[in-house]
Amino acid sequence: MAYGYNGRILRVDLTKGTISVDEPGDGFYRRYFGGRGFISYYLLRELKAGVDPFSSENKLVFAAGVVTGAPVGGSGRNSVGAKSPLTGAYGDAEVGGYWGAELKHAGYDAIIVEGKAEKPVYLWIKEGEVEIRDASHLWGKTTAECQEIIRADVGEPLARTAIIGQAGENLVRYAAIINDVHHAAGRTGLGAVMGSKNLKAIAVRGHNRPALANPDAVGALAKWLRDVVGLVMGGFRSQGTAVSLRALNRDGGLPTRNLQQSVFEEADKITGRAMKETILIGQGSCYACPVRCKRIVSVSEPYQVDPAYGGPEYETLAAFGSNCGVDDLAAIAKANELCNAHGLDTISTGATVAFAMECYERGILSERDTGGLKLNFGNASAMLQLVDMIVKREGIGDILAEGVARAANTIGKGAEEFALHVKGQEIPMHDPRYKQGLGIGYAISPKGADHTMSVHDSMYTSEGPLMESGKGLGLLEPLALNDLSPSKVRMVVYHSCWQHLIDCLVLCNFMPFSYRQVEELVCGVTGWNSTVWELMKVGERCLAMTRAFNIREGLGRKDDVLPQRFFTPLPSGPLQGVSIDKDQFEQAKETFYSMMGWDRINGSPGRGKLQELGIEWVSDYLGGEVED
Amino acid sequence: MAYGYNGRILRVDLTKGTISVDEPGDGFYRRYFGGRGFISYYLLRELKAGVDPFSSENKLVFAAGVVTGAPVGGSGRNSVGAKSPLTGAYGDAEVGGYWGAELKHAGYDAIIVEGKAEKPVYLWIKEGEVEIRDASHLWGKTTAECQEIIRADVGEPLARTAIIGQAGENLVRYAAIINDVHHAAGRTGLGAVMGSKNLKAIAVRGHNRPALANPDAVGALAKWLRDVVGLVMGGFRSQGTAVSLRALNRDGGLPTRNLQQSVFEEADKITGRAMKETILIGQGSCYACPVRCKRIVSVSEPYQVDPAYGGPEYETLAAFGSNCGVDDLAAIAKANELCNAHGLDTISTGATVAFAMECYERGILSERDTGGLKLNFGNASAMLQLVDMIVKREGIGDILAEGVARAANTIGKGAEEFALHVKGQEIPMHDPRYKQGLGIGYAISPKGADHTMSVHDSMYTSEGPLMESGKGLGLLEPLALNDLSPSKVRMVVYHSCWQHLIDCLVLCNFMPFSYRQVEELVCGVTGWNSTVWELMKVGERCLAMTRAFNIREGLGRKDDVLPQRFFTPLPSGPLQGVSIDKDQFEQAKETFYSMMGWDRINGSPGRGKLQELGIEWVSDYLGGEVED
Repeated sequence: MAYGYNGRILRVDLTKGTISVDEPGDGFYRRYFGGRGFISYYLLRELKAGVDPFSSENKLVFAAGVVTGAPVGGSGRNSVGAKSPLTGAYGDAEVGGYWGAELKHAGYDAIIVEGKAEKPVYLWIKEGEVEIRDASHLWGKTTAECQEIIRADVGEPLARTAIIGQAGENLVRYAAIINDVHHAAGRTGLGAVMGSKNLKAIAVRGHNRPALANPDAVGALAKWLRDVVGLVMGGFRSQGTAVSLRALNRDGGLPTRNLQQSVFEEADKITGRAMKETILIGQGSCYACPVRCKRIVSVSEPYQVDPAYGGPEYETLAAFGSNCGVDDLAAIAKANELCNAHGLDTISTGATVAFAMECYERGILSERDTGGLKLNFGNASAMLQLVDMIVKREGIGDILAEGVARAANTIGKGAEEFALHVKGQEIPMHDPRYKQGLGIGYAISPKGADHTMSVHDSMYTSEGPLMESGKGLGLLEPLALNDLSPSKVRMVVYHSCWQHLIDCLVLCNFMPFSYRQVEELVCGVTGWNSTVWELMKVGERCLAMTRAFNIREGLGRKDDVLPQRFFTPLPSGPLQGVSIDKDQFEQAKETFYSMMGWDRINGSPGRGKLQELGIEWVSDYLGGEVED
Repeated sequence: MAYGYNGRILRVDLTKGTISVDEPGDGFYRRYFGGRGFISYYLLRELKAGVDPFSSENKLVFAAGVVTGAPVGGSGRNSVGAKSPLTGAYGDAEVGGYWGAELKHAGYDAIIVEGKAEKPVYLWIKEGEVEIRDASHLWGKTTAECQEIIRADVGEPLARTAIIGQAGENLVRYAAIINDVHHAAGRTGLGAVMGSKNLKAIAVRGHNRPALANPDAVGALAKWLRDVVGLVMGGFRSQGTAVSLRALNRDGGLPTRNLQQSVFEEADKITGRAMKETILIGQGSCYACPVRCKRIVSVSEPYQVDPAYGGPEYETLAAFGSNCGVDDLAAIAKANELCNAHGLDTISTGATVAFAMECYERGILSERDTGGLKLNFGNASAMLQLVDMIVKREGIGDILAEGVARAANTIGKGAEEFALHVKGQEIPMHDPRYKQGLGIGYAISPKGADHTMSVHDSMYTSEGPLMESGKGLGLLEPLALNDLSPSKVRMVVYHSCWQHLIDCLVLCNFMPFSYRQVEELVCGVTGWNSTVWELMKVGERCLAMTRAFNIREGLGRKDDVLPQRFFTPLPSGPLQGVSIDKDQFEQAKETFYSMMGWDRINGSPGRGKLQELGIEWVSDYLGGEVED
């Protein structure tokens, strides 16, 4: 029997201490594929509307996908999801490394964590066997300390781990879950949900690689990837995800000083190249991947940075670098280490520090508020101290641990203007005045500001290999970056569906696969005869499900907004004077809803669309509020 | 440069006698592909609303597609389209043989025929050169006579021809255009449009085979087809399209006596097998096709049937056989010959005779009306005489030449109840009480009752190779034939889009290609990187365009109806007591509109859908009547 057909989904009730296994069958797998598909399915069906994200009624789902663990680059990842404590909406995060593949090899496609343990525990899953174990001795430990102890406890030096740090324990609303100490499931605060359940870690080990339906096809794809990786992924291999930082700055798209500017005059000091020439000591990888984009850095002066925690990605470099006005690569590496050690999302943490810095520079926060920290942009030392205070919820850190939206509300004095977020989640390191299609994605993504919803604008600016790829979906015309026409919206719609498919497969975004190669991967692993049409519909289905979850929580069009800053012109740089046109933006949102088959009033998926996607059951979970 | 990119579209103005060539470029080809895509594009943009189909303002478009003429079975066909004189709506017909490939090899993807010649003419196209030639000596001739004369005139014994007979000349509203004397572009009355323009024929000859982008991929597909054809198309090869007649009758789905019944007690006398064992003398083929499903028959007693006119297909066997209560294979073969010689659609002609027979048996028509013909069901001789009267518009034939809808109106006395049509076009030989999804297709097809819109119901009744194929589109569940649930509607929607794609490619419906093999064919011929998503969107785009054409003509939901007969129970046979539930049917139509992104009031494509499909220009041609 082919891979994926007979998957098992583990269910752990931490309140009762019980363990069970669901085997939902091929039809389930073929409709939802995994990852975000599983998470949105279970959250819609099993959560009550309005549940407190930190209550025992929230559920935390760890999910692989049908191709996870196949011997092809990009397939080692996993998703984690729950109702987000940061946004109150659908929340999930994807994470690289080996843990997803290991979970699959240990016999499970997903874990649904329910309830709340009375005292700290961790899960140990080995070759299909599951134990809920005491974690009292692990509480308060860094991720690296915790991993070391767990591996010794279970006697498996190669056990893969997903661990929270103090940030998650302390319910910092943007706490992350860290896999193998240096891969982060960063966004939407899932580390805090894990902390709220007194679940410190999940360690897994397994050797049961499911059979491939067509090993030759999968092998050919893996070989293709190995063969082209030097050619098409050379920059990634050499400089990591930071390879794009320099060009973004050149073009006027690098978030700088809480997105007040989009050019950072010291950008050259924090590029992938600068990292390579200074602090880089090695490259990490994910399961089966030939790219090796992950960074390993070491710093001894003026900060000690432990190489075990990896090195900063692009998002981290911009969030703690340009966006905090910091040009000190060592300090950024240290901030990255703190986030990985204590379990924080580097994007939201950096963005929150930048928010505090702007408040400080504008006199909204004073040294009295900050406990003496001089929070000027560029003050690397203060930045690091503030991260530590957030982890521990000390002083102003306790307020900032709530995220910029809640913090601005607490701080008052007009701080809200400088709190850059969508639905409560902080803006990632892509300025939507630069990539305006991304602005639609930020506004409409179920997760709040999420750059993975649509970062594809730059593919379509001129004829070239990337635009050529998009033609395979019928996206035929070049589009300006600041275009918000229906053609741009179509691009965002199609890519949002594709991105949701990728997040159902839990594949890495950076694999240079064509649409048809992903089709080949799915078919080669599962034995299905899926087409790109089916794959797009899996993504569209998932996007409708996450949207439906949010509609049930009371979110809708009123929440599909962008901070006012993006409707005001950039003050300098190549994009001086550029802003998003608000009328065009509102029209583009309506066009997005309409193209999706969602109503134009609130962006709620209509009955016909739910029926077409084979998820009419969703309407039952919306209390019959579906538009005919 | 790859095939299809640089195609040429010929424009012939018969009023002015002028010839010109459009080269619309790659973007045009990639959006519309050919066939129905081209026809709907030109009719929408170049016809005024409300134009008389027989006026010089109507345009007649002959179209191949981007893969036409490639050396793979199924690719020799062409489409013909115009505003239909039968329905007043969008009209087109697809036709097999060699003419489409020959047109392509002569240098053109399509011909737009405009205006009206003062006296009969024909077109002669050779290696890109075009002549408008006198056809006075051809008027009134049979298709075979005409072809012989033209071939001699132009000195090309292998010239391929598209010819009308007396039926087209006499503006019989369901007159056909006959390719090479025995392949019919049968439906929607395009032969009459050709006749109204005084255009007797188009003869073509060419040897310029466009280069293939990937000859190996195309060659592999052609080889695959040759290899499997015996296995999966053995029935077709052996018995032609009539292979299904026996099973349809067994299951209670064979239109009998003007669809009063669905079982014909003498069915065994008119099956593909019976034909093979009696009158079959050979098999014909289409360009590059290894199947050879076309029949060649010869009869000497009691009728002379000329083998040059081929032999009856399934539709013809049922239309002149069971549906007229006739069990005489020789008479059916003769009727087929008459239709091909004089240029009539066998479906509409047989259905019209059956209508007249029911009227006669019910006393609505008498011998006085019929000129002495005793039109009882089963009277083969009367049937043949009536066909001749229709061709010549003699007596009752003049009334019946208008089609059943207009004829019933003229006849009065309640004849309307027995006039089985949608939008004026007669019902093909598939009972929608048997395949209920097809009922939705009949009602909604832009062409009126058209079985190619959706004949796929039976693929999904149980797990098997055909249903497995459908899973590639995400159609995962078995569906009962009489199911009209949203799942069935989704199947009809997806297959309607796919069917429109196939009719944009002008591929044969019967090729056993998977969705991905069609993708391979398109990419192998053109060099595009199309996915099945792009292909489905081409089909959906075309369906929206044909729908928009009809909306402009004043058609809408009120015209998406089925004859009352199908809402009344079958009187006998395996499906005794079965009918279509009217409420379910109305609900299914709304679901269809909704799934298509059309409004639920009138089934008009919404602005968001037009924008998503990249055809917002359509709204300009609807006079701004597009729903937001």
